[in-house]
Amino acid sequence: MTLRSTLDFLLYDWLGAEALTARTRFADHSRETFDAVLDTCERIAREKYAPFNRTVDTEEPHFDGEKVILPQATYEARKAYAESGLLSAAQDYEIGGMQLPYTVEAAANSFFAVASISIGSNLLTSGNANLLMAHGTALQKEVFALNEFNGRWSGTMCLSEPQAGSSLSDVATRAVPDGAGFESDPLGPRYRLTGNKMWISSGDHELTENIVHLVLAKIPGPDGKLVPGTKGISLFIVPKKMVDAQGQLTGVRNDVALAGLNHKLGWRGTTNTLLNFGEGRFPVDGQAGAVGYLVGQPGKGLHCMFHMMNEARIGIGMAATMLGLAGYYASLDYAKNRPQGRPVQGPKEAAGASAVVKDVAQPQVRIIEHADVKRMLLAQKSYGEGALALNLFCAKLVDEQHTGDAAAADEARLLLEVLTPIAKSWPSEFCLEANSLAIQIHGGYGYTRDFPVEQYWRDNRLNMIHEGTHGIQAMDLLGRKVLMEGGRGLQLLAGRINATIERAIQVPALAAHANALGAALQQVGAATKAAWATGQPADALANAVPYMQAFGHTVLAWVWLDLALATLADDAALAQAASVGRMGAMRYFFHYELPKIGAWLHVVSTRDATCASFPEDAF
Amino acid sequence: MTLRSTLDFLLYDWLGAEALTARTRFADHSRETFDAVLDTCERIAREKYAPFNRTVDTEEPHFDGEKVILPQATYEARKAYAESGLLSAAQDYEIGGMQLPYTVEAAANSFFAVASISIGSNLLTSGNANLLMAHGTALQKEVFALNEFNGRWSGTMCLSEPQAGSSLSDVATRAVPDGAGFESDPLGPRYRLTGNKMWISSGDHELTENIVHLVLAKIPGPDGKLVPGTKGISLFIVPKKMVDAQGQLTGVRNDVALAGLNHKLGWRGTTNTLLNFGEGRFPVDGQAGAVGYLVGQPGKGLHCMFHMMNEARIGIGMAATMLGLAGYYASLDYAKNRPQGRPVQGPKEAAGASAVVKDVAQPQVRIIEHADVKRMLLAQKSYGEGALALNLFCAKLVDEQHTGDAAAADEARLLLEVLTPIAKSWPSEFCLEANSLAIQIHGGYGYTRDFPVEQYWRDNRLNMIHEGTHGIQAMDLLGRKVLMEGGRGLQLLAGRINATIERAIQVPALAAHANALGAALQQVGAATKAAWATGQPADALANAVPYMQAFGHTVLAWVWLDLALATLADDAALAQAASVGRMGAMRYFFHYELPKIGAWLHVVSTRDATCASFPEDAF
Repeated sequence: MTLRSTLDFLLYDWLGAEALTARTRFADHSRETFDAVLDTCERIAREKYAPFNRTVDTEEPHFDGEKVILPQATYEARKAYAESGLLSAAQDYEIGGMQLPYTVEAAANSFFAVASISIGSNLLTSGNANLLMAHGTALQKEVFALNEFNGRWSGTMCLSEPQAGSSLSDVATRAVPDGAGFESDPLGPRYRLTGNKMWISSGDHELTENIVHLVLAKIPGPDGKLVPGTKGISLFIVPKKMVDAQGQLTGVRNDVALAGLNHKLGWRGTTNTLLNFGEGRFPVDGQAGAVGYLVGQPGKGLHCMFHMMNEARIGIGMAATMLGLAGYYASLDYAKNRPQGRPVQGPKEAAGASAVVKDVAQPQVRIIEHADVKRMLLAQKSYGEGALALNLFCAKLVDEQHTGDAAAADEARLLLEVLTPIAKSWPSEFCLEANSLAIQIHGGYGYTRDFPVEQYWRDNRLNMIHEGTHGIQAMDLLGRKVLMEGGRGLQLLAGRINATIERAIQVPALAAHANALGAALQQVGAATKAAWATGQPADALANAVPYMQAFGHTVLAWVWLDLALATLADDAALAQAASVGRMGAMRYFFHYELPKIGAWLHVVSTRDATCASFPEDAF
Repeated sequence: MTLRSTLDFLLYDWLGAEALTARTRFADHSRETFDAVLDTCERIAREKYAPFNRTVDTEEPHFDGEKVILPQATYEARKAYAESGLLSAAQDYEIGGMQLPYTVEAAANSFFAVASISIGSNLLTSGNANLLMAHGTALQKEVFALNEFNGRWSGTMCLSEPQAGSSLSDVATRAVPDGAGFESDPLGPRYRLTGNKMWISSGDHELTENIVHLVLAKIPGPDGKLVPGTKGISLFIVPKKMVDAQGQLTGVRNDVALAGLNHKLGWRGTTNTLLNFGEGRFPVDGQAGAVGYLVGQPGKGLHCMFHMMNEARIGIGMAATMLGLAGYYASLDYAKNRPQGRPVQGPKEAAGASAVVKDVAQPQVRIIEHADVKRMLLAQKSYGEGALALNLFCAKLVDEQHTGDAAAADEARLLLEVLTPIAKSWPSEFCLEANSLAIQIHGGYGYTRDFPVEQYWRDNRLNMIHEGTHGIQAMDLLGRKVLMEGGRGLQLLAGRINATIERAIQVPALAAHANALGAALQQVGAATKAAWATGQPADALANAVPYMQAFGHTVLAWVWLDLALATLADDAALAQAASVGRMGAMRYFFHYELPKIGAWLHVVSTRDATCASFPEDAF
């Protein structure tokens, strides 16, 4: 199946995205306008992204002492993306946006991700500007957000520091008021920032006229000390080049300096940087310190940042998913065309030597005819299409949260809280495994750089690390999300899963799977209780990752069962290859994947302390 | 633990390698001589290999039109290795060998593999020469094998072709008699070869004066056609440069030309080539066709090659294992030194928000104090040390096969047949996973090329592909090895496993694990029967890979239980960190890993046809 036909099924037949047009915000839209956006993105991705995916891998960003050098293709890809209007897809018409549902925006962005994940970092710019629209002043929106939406400037998120990656409590970047009258700068209360920010994607380049850094930093207390923990963190706009209240560059460089480019395993099209803020290399008004404008309230920086967290994490989940699907499409194509070997023949001899008899007088068959190659393709299909469905489901919850009635919006919010760690972590882990299978199908050729699959695998390895590591997603899930509001989020999800089970159990072809899912859900519920039976986080969370793996597989089994129901609902389409394929992928997931949860939950349920209690000197 | 201390335990405390010195062939050896070899190799690897592992990754081999250019470090590493005598470690004293047990040789080579897997390809040279010692004529041994053992020349194995990777039946390289009197060449019956050989490691370079290619090719029948299948395959010595019967270069280049270097994902220190044989670029005596000397009987080429198969596959298993351990050591070091985050505190609040409370007033802890990091370290330890134990166990079986009494030798041979697919495939899969965990522990830093772990992961990805892919190992295991000789190999292995179980069940600390292993063994046995219940290979082998994964995990659980018995046997050492560590790794394997076999065997036992019957157009 093509990506487009898969998206069509998921958006329209499964998620009923067309119904969103009944809502006031999306009233001017129709399936036709949604499709037009998808068409445009598919075309741009095909023309400006896909042909250059290897280029941006081999022509890694480098710094010539003055500027960061990127391939020409990166400039052209960015220009085409900005011209598509996707940067402000979700925004109001009155500021030039499309008022597009996030569901459709996410689907549209999938074309770029599958074509070249690292050539663009547009989601960062959108996310940055969206955050300013939610928390900025009117002028901050007009000067900064709007110039990001229109493509003139780009944006970054500066959270991590060399000594504070996962642990944001330990952010040490300082922000001090910039002299008398600092509060009355039209662009916002004006501070001077000093500190180092690590892992900043697109932190320096010449792709745009200016770069808008959103920076987490701490304002020292009266004693001059930083407040420990995340409560002391504030959020600042720090432009690379100073601008006036009309959004014009003043010609003055802000005190933000590129300290180094990170040389990565993959995802090489996107510059990743260490930035020094306020080291004095570019003094403003004769003074060291990067000029930053406070966004929102002091001490509420993480709150502002986390406002965008669900969408950012869905974005990572989508990135991992699309890399998984890219490898699937590449290996499917290879498997259909590569002749190698012959099918095994039977029956085996009564005793003795090899049972693997092959008729070498026959020509070789294409490798897609081998059962094990089909297994590796089906695993990729079930991972990739399942992950895509889950992420679009979460995207739809975002729309529900923003445009649904109060009850539906609240329910969507809470479901998102529980599902986001899965939407981010599950594709990061299993679509990476899919990429490994894509290499395996290619054999020796897959290990060469003449085929794209090794790059997908390298690119995808990042997704378990950035935007909250796998371990952090797992702590978030088992330590916060399944507990919050008295466990109501987990109950909501269970309610949704049970609703699918109740429908599926009445369908003969699905009844056994419905029962298997019911049993899995019970196991997850029991394991959650058992993990917390002592009330000690150290006991419960010692096996948070295996818990998340089992939770994720259960969620994906639910997604596949629900997709099967939607497939069976269309009698006319049932004989079509796409329907046959979805039903097969669903069966694959239930037969080969869901049974894995037993081993993962075993250690959770017993609060196994083998790892937690292992003494350091015994490693 | 250091690699050396782990090897000491495995070799002497577990495998009883010292007892080998009671055998005539090894009678001049002692633990002291074994240790001296290990000391030398450890030192050379530390000095000549480890410092240049990144160098050979970044300074990839390239062809300047005349010669293949390699870093200087590669020359020096090779020279030091050759001078160590390891190339002929297993050979007789009379030809300059050490008469070293293969067990010790394998352990000694592990130091090079952990330091830099790709800087040297010495195992290929040894394997090539060993094969000639087994199947060559006296002069072939003297001219070719001895000059490989002494380091003057190097060797390759030329099996695959662009259209025949896994399917050797389809080898199309032709060998025709080289004129009248071709049979009477002192170096062996002389043929002219034409064809292309793909994936040839160290196929061209200037590291040695000459390169001895061992080439599979087919001699056409009277009708001029090649015999289909593997029966038509013969083996030839094809030197890069022509030599006389005294082993001197004649100054004539043979008709073997480098057609291209493969640019790989990893393992970049070793040149990998496409070679054209007989294209006429270097005519010998005015005539196109690479000159090759027949080894052994015509049509018995694969038989000769497969003679070395077990050791070659153990070599790959060791390579994968040592990369796994290299990542383990690197991430352990990082985890001990990197401060980040704080432990979770309890007890959780009765209801509501996050249960993950951390005291931010405290300094950060080192990440090795986090349970999930310990889990990732323990997984690596259990994979890497377990795989090392298994491979050394197999190496000991090789010694048993060569120097044991008739019954023991036969038993060793058969056990090796069954265990070799596991020794090769299991580390390739799970030590690759270990490398991914090593990256994860490093966080963002692990994704950069400033740390070694991303390279280990890339290097290791090859091992599931070369020397028989994962799928081929699985077909070999379930399609041949567990059936051969009426299933006697499987019975032998089961007998060994049951012997361990019987000892362990009497030890209170191990009884539960012994029972778990007993149950696993029964499951594997039942699944083997169920897979073959219809007698149809297509049914049985459709899920050969999941079968191999379960079989492998069961074998590793047995290895770990047996290691635990050896650990407990030494009362005095029980309190030592090394012993505590092994017992913990064993528990990890039984609690976290062994339960995974249920899901894998489920599809084997039901002969699940979801993949095999999936229609091509439904993907």
